[in-house]
Amino acid sequence: MADFTEKLHAGMRTKYPLRRRLLARKTRFQSMQVVDTVRFGRMLVLDDIVETTEADEFVYHEMMTHVPMYTHPNPKRVLIIGGGDGGVLREVLRHPVERAVMVEIDGAVVDAAKKYLRKICGRAFKDPRAELVIGDGAAYVRDTADSFDVVIVDSTDPLGPSMPLFGKEFYRNAARIMGRQGLLVRQTGSAFMQGPELAAAVKHARQVFDCVEVFLSAVPTYVGGHFTHPLMGMTDFTKRITAAAVRRSFERRPLKTRYYNPEVHAAAFALPEYIGALCGGPRRRTK
Amino acid sequence: MADFTEKLHAGMRTKYPLRRRLLARKTRFQSMQVVDTVRFGRMLVLDDIVETTEADEFVYHEMMTHVPMYTHPNPKRVLIIGGGDGGVLREVLRHPVERAVMVEIDGAVVDAAKKYLRKICGRAFKDPRAELVIGDGAAYVRDTADSFDVVIVDSTDPLGPSMPLFGKEFYRNAARIMGRQGLLVRQTGSAFMQGPELAAAVKHARQVFDCVEVFLSAVPTYVGGHFTHPLMGMTDFTKRITAAAVRRSFERRPLKTRYYNPEVHAAAFALPEYIGALCGGPRRRTK
Repeated sequence: MADFTEKLHAGMRTKYPLRRRLLARKTRFQSMQVVDTVRFGRMLVLDDIVETTEADEFVYHEMMTHVPMYTHPNPKRVLIIGGGDGGVLREVLRHPVERAVMVEIDGAVVDAAKKYLRKICGRAFKDPRAELVIGDGAAYVRDTADSFDVVIVDSTDPLGPSMPLFGKEFYRNAARIMGRQGLLVRQTGSAFMQGPELAAAVKHARQVFDCVEVFLSAVPTYVGGHFTHPLMGMTDFTKRITAAAVRRSFERRPLKTRYYNPEVHAAAFALPEYIGALCGGPRRRTK
Repeated sequence: MADFTEKLHAGMRTKYPLRRRLLARKTRFQSMQVVDTVRFGRMLVLDDIVETTEADEFVYHEMMTHVPMYTHPNPKRVLIIGGGDGGVLREVLRHPVERAVMVEIDGAVVDAAKKYLRKICGRAFKDPRAELVIGDGAAYVRDTADSFDVVIVDSTDPLGPSMPLFGKEFYRNAARIMGRQGLLVRQTGSAFMQGPELAAAVKHARQVFDCVEVFLSAVPTYVGGHFTHPLMGMTDFTKRITAAAVRRSFERRPLKTRYYNPEVHAAAFALPEYIGALCGGPRRRTK
């Protein structure tokens, strides 16, 4: 059987031997594959970039969800932009939320997830608290009259259909629909391999949000060392990401997890020197 | 020009495009290559496994060195087992040590480092405090009458020439030559890809040492998510790895670093749930 080779990073290419290819098609927005890998189970690939795999999706989905959800004192309304595989939605719905709106631009990804990635989306799309909108996330945050406690931007990299989610206008609109204690989280790739993209994203975010702190995860199939996630809010949330504060928050609504725990939550904000430098210095806020 | 493909992990192979191959030979102990990669500069490859690269060596070498060096209250005598590329020796010598003994089994690796990896070893081998022994590290710790504050086992994986460094006998001999506050550190690979090896190493270490705590790093060319390092001592050092304690230690003898800092030092011991489970539960000590 053939391999799948990811070519995201020039100079470091990762090859995954496959058992079989389950799906390969062009959607309206991107090329999409679902492949069954030898080591990581089923893998979703968009525009030849690994989006998620059955074996290690828990790392990314838990950190993208539980870090904002436990930093926020009482998140009830959650907006997910992107996230077509359903992994973030699944983790969000484990919290006592009232409403989780997911705005995914490419309905074909959701269809593929429901058919091939049930181990990732589970029954999330059937949950009565979940509301799926197939549409443009940037337009949604511009136009909606609703407000949200937590916004999770689970998009692909700043190429193709995700481009409008990386501009200052998107951040301004997102800030408008977030409550005073609202939090927005996104992914900004590998600090080592995509340093300029991380630096630009943090700089843009700091032009809109009062508090921007980057946290880290280590996802086996997102190669290149630490993976980065900026967390943004209109008020200073740094006191809510200490180990003691997170533990209190977690103990009020505990969950069984495979990667996340309160100590990891707090520790994830400790940035190695070279990553801190990319983010404009460790724990420094401009504005 | 050809690529170099690492085949350490079945199911996930990493391919590095090369500018040129500088050296390829069999030594008495292993196959050795030095290649010039497009993205990571020069790379040392032993038995077809990436050992270190110019671009990201600082992550591993700083964490392997500074975590034990700043956890120990006053490290003066350091023993390095392996470490032929000279990166750990270079970092050790930045501390005010009296003596750094390095016991490398394969003199050909040291020769290659001096010739091709000057960006990694620097002038470390010429430092008057450094003492290079070409010989068997396991035999050295068994036979030496000297004692050491910090022992850094910078070996290849438990295959080939490194096998004797992974047994209980090695740990018993190492414990004998370490002072009461002595610390030993090693690497145990990727938690995700080499979980059973990590679990076995921690179990064996706990049969000899009173205190074994695993810390993490994220090294771009050590693929597979978090890389793991058990730190071992005969006395409980957990109070010395808190952020406040490490910061005090660091401020007494500060260094300019690219990855390590006191916050990262403390945070590196926060283990994701699946890694904690491999280590017999988070922060649990047996014996």
